[in-house]
Amino acid sequence: MAQLVIIGGSDAGISAALRARELDPTVRVTVVVADAYPNYSICGLPFYLSGETPDWHMLAHRTIAEIKAQGVNLLLNHTARRIEPTHHHVIIEDQDGQPHTLPFDRLIIATGAAPRRPAIAGLDTPGVYLLHTMDDSFAVHAGLAALDEANGATPQRPRAVAIIGGGYIGLELADALRHRGFAVTLAQRGPTLLNTVEPEFGERIEAELLRHGVTVLTGTTVDAITAIPAERRHDDDTPPLLVEGASEDGARARIAADLVVAPVGVQPVTQLAQTAGCALGAQGALAVSRAMATNIPTIYAAGDCVETWSHPLQRNIYLPLGTTAHKQGRIAGENAVRSLRGAGEPRSFAGSLGTQVVKVFTLAIARTGLTEAEANAADFDAVATEITTWDHKAYYPGAQPLTIRVTGDRATGRLLGASILGHWQAEVAKRIDIFATALFHQMCVADLSDLDLSYTPPLSSPWDPVQMAAQAWAKAWLREVIA
Amino acid sequence: MAQLVIIGGSDAGISAALRARELDPTVRVTVVVADAYPNYSICGLPFYLSGETPDWHMLAHRTIAEIKAQGVNLLLNHTARRIEPTHHHVIIEDQDGQPHTLPFDRLIIATGAAPRRPAIAGLDTPGVYLLHTMDDSFAVHAGLAALDEANGATPQRPRAVAIIGGGYIGLELADALRHRGFAVTLAQRGPTLLNTVEPEFGERIEAELLRHGVTVLTGTTVDAITAIPAERRHDDDTPPLLVEGASEDGARARIAADLVVAPVGVQPVTQLAQTAGCALGAQGALAVSRAMATNIPTIYAAGDCVETWSHPLQRNIYLPLGTTAHKQGRIAGENAVRSLRGAGEPRSFAGSLGTQVVKVFTLAIARTGLTEAEANAADFDAVATEITTWDHKAYYPGAQPLTIRVTGDRATGRLLGASILGHWQAEVAKRIDIFATALFHQMCVADLSDLDLSYTPPLSSPWDPVQMAAQAWAKAWLREVIA
Repeated sequence: MAQLVIIGGSDAGISAALRARELDPTVRVTVVVADAYPNYSICGLPFYLSGETPDWHMLAHRTIAEIKAQGVNLLLNHTARRIEPTHHHVIIEDQDGQPHTLPFDRLIIATGAAPRRPAIAGLDTPGVYLLHTMDDSFAVHAGLAALDEANGATPQRPRAVAIIGGGYIGLELADALRHRGFAVTLAQRGPTLLNTVEPEFGERIEAELLRHGVTVLTGTTVDAITAIPAERRHDDDTPPLLVEGASEDGARARIAADLVVAPVGVQPVTQLAQTAGCALGAQGALAVSRAMATNIPTIYAAGDCVETWSHPLQRNIYLPLGTTAHKQGRIAGENAVRSLRGAGEPRSFAGSLGTQVVKVFTLAIARTGLTEAEANAADFDAVATEITTWDHKAYYPGAQPLTIRVTGDRATGRLLGASILGHWQAEVAKRIDIFATALFHQMCVADLSDLDLSYTPPLSSPWDPVQMAAQAWAKAWLREVIA
Repeated sequence: MAQLVIIGGSDAGISAALRARELDPTVRVTVVVADAYPNYSICGLPFYLSGETPDWHMLAHRTIAEIKAQGVNLLLNHTARRIEPTHHHVIIEDQDGQPHTLPFDRLIIATGAAPRRPAIAGLDTPGVYLLHTMDDSFAVHAGLAALDEANGATPQRPRAVAIIGGGYIGLELADALRHRGFAVTLAQRGPTLLNTVEPEFGERIEAELLRHGVTVLTGTTVDAITAIPAERRHDDDTPPLLVEGASEDGARARIAADLVVAPVGVQPVTQLAQTAGCALGAQGALAVSRAMATNIPTIYAAGDCVETWSHPLQRNIYLPLGTTAHKQGRIAGENAVRSLRGAGEPRSFAGSLGTQVVKVFTLAIARTGLTEAEANAADFDAVATEITTWDHKAYYPGAQPLTIRVTGDRATGRLLGASILGHWQAEVAKRIDIFATALFHQMCVADLSDLDLSYTPPLSSPWDPVQMAAQAWAKAWLREVIA
């Protein structure tokens, strides 16, 4: 019986396992999982912390039983220590530190990413948390619960949480912790929030945070966190943590906090793969082909530990996303099985468009492809236009404004990217997916008017806002061409 | 100054006018409008009748002032009587019946469609209304208001409305009139509601209607409507209309009603174009090229009066839809201007996918491409699969089930069509648009997994439901291919 071993039980690893079993139920598939939480939705942690998802077990994309029902063997709480490709085996260690040898015919490395420890003094101070794993999340949850408890039933003052970083998770955390009634201060290094979207959008997100009572410090680099000794605090009710940051021009921020969360960036976990001789590619991630093969025959890799083919840039970058991990894992599983059978051409990863969406309070902010700045940095001659229009016919109640930015290529008229900001229930997410599907097919902006999109007055207009935005871009482009 | 004349001031006509002016502000554009309501959203009439759109003026896609601001001349309450292509003019009649001659260099015919009068005895009985134009809608509105008034502030009984026809407008009317508190009975000729979607979906729509207190009679052909004489009514409070229908096996339905609305099918209005020698095409609609040109040089046509190129069928059909009328009008306007200037290749209508969505109470039902039955009727070897899944991660509050049917081609694996039914705020409409965009590009079902779609737990899953449905189809197809 052919053996497929997968190291890593998160999105990429489990996707690979399920796909392999789906295509060939005769393959023995074993997944080595370092903790006890395979296939957990890390993107769901903010909602666990907000209380909207009361039981963390709900965060599992699939339960252990569901995964096992597909004939996948799970080795929970086992750590892979060394890969020996010439011997076709992996040395793993069980919960008690006992080593075992696990033979493989094909191996998929899906070891994911680890938080990039930021250069902040005092990160180990009690009450300060990095947020990445389920275990991190339990720790933050316990910390928040302790604050709630200390506060009692009739709170003297809202407890204060400082969030370091205004990216996707930071923004979701701000929403989550306001939902629970904490006072929230968010510090962001860059000049605007969510630097993966246009600065204008970042400013609107900031306004939304302020509207919901979040204190926002932009252009502020946090450099130190210290515990304030009891004698320097007025009483027990004074927040015990001091978060200090500075702006480039020397302004200093000093934030008093009961708890600090830093949902910082991540880096690929590659040490194990390097023991096997796997080469590194973009930004220190594992080098992989479009078929998700490493440079070592029989070894594939997928997910947050590998480089990602960028569809708009046509080169590898490091862009760890759950959606990409699922896709890459599925392809790695498929190709591992195909190569075992010697059957058919390997399936190729089509590439990431960098499509992302986040809900922040009442807003959804979505993007796909390249922003104007990103496109120009990649040597496109980019033009961007922006419109604001209603998500559906204004005569039907509840219409919400959508702001849509379209970026296109001056030379060819081709769509390069789009961003949408609007009410989270105004179909922002699936509207960006229309742009994503158009981008996938390398459409010209003007041709989006040819798409036969759905319309009923409560849900759209005869020209969907996506098409209105494309028409506005094409009109501006036409004027420029004529001029 | 070149003269572009457009006959018809609804979606196609106004779209043509605006596009022509956008491309060439030197062209004189005149639109002949038979009534005083150019560019009204006929799709919005149900919401005017429900009271959700209190003022009918709000139904204008654009106000008269907005259209005029683009330099378009509007001849309101003018009727085109005869087109004389050899003389390059149209004979029009003003409000007072006075004829005028309107010269043109290019002409666009956008005369729309008229209700197809059903074979029902007693359609002219007072209290019985066909619903198609703004004027029809005012009449129904007045009829409903009179019932409300007769009923007084403390109603003795809910007034009863019978709706004949369970298509898009019939379903929206049922929703609208329940919203206003009327008792509603809906009679549908076919065995299930909304026969443009799969029967299984029709049954779920019926359940939704019943859940909201609508009486539904399927398989029932209404054949007569009569006014019941006062002496045969118990008192003034007894509904004065009798609607009679029969099923194929002879069961009879007799419905008492205060008011009857029949949102029946439409037929293309072509008489005027025929005076010019324009040829007819599919199902009696005007024959047009993909450039929206008729067989008469200098004359274009667009909208509900013309045949429509079907993208999935690759032939002309008659499928009058507002979205299509906007697209065709825009292309006719563009090509009329291009041919005046002798500049560039004409733009080609890309074709309709038959994408549609309707909101019925809390449901949205959407479709694009071909259903399994339609595909098989068109000689495809179609396979369809259905899944039901959550619109977003179930751990985030408010997840709603989506039922998605995917139809694909057994021979090639290509996507042929899809339908989605789910809560109207679960992004059903823009999810069907992902399928529509994929269909436009003739994607294989399995390749939908390659699309980089947006994900955040409150709005989707790492594989969007659209992709889960495509994967289920591909899995079933694979099994069949292997078997």
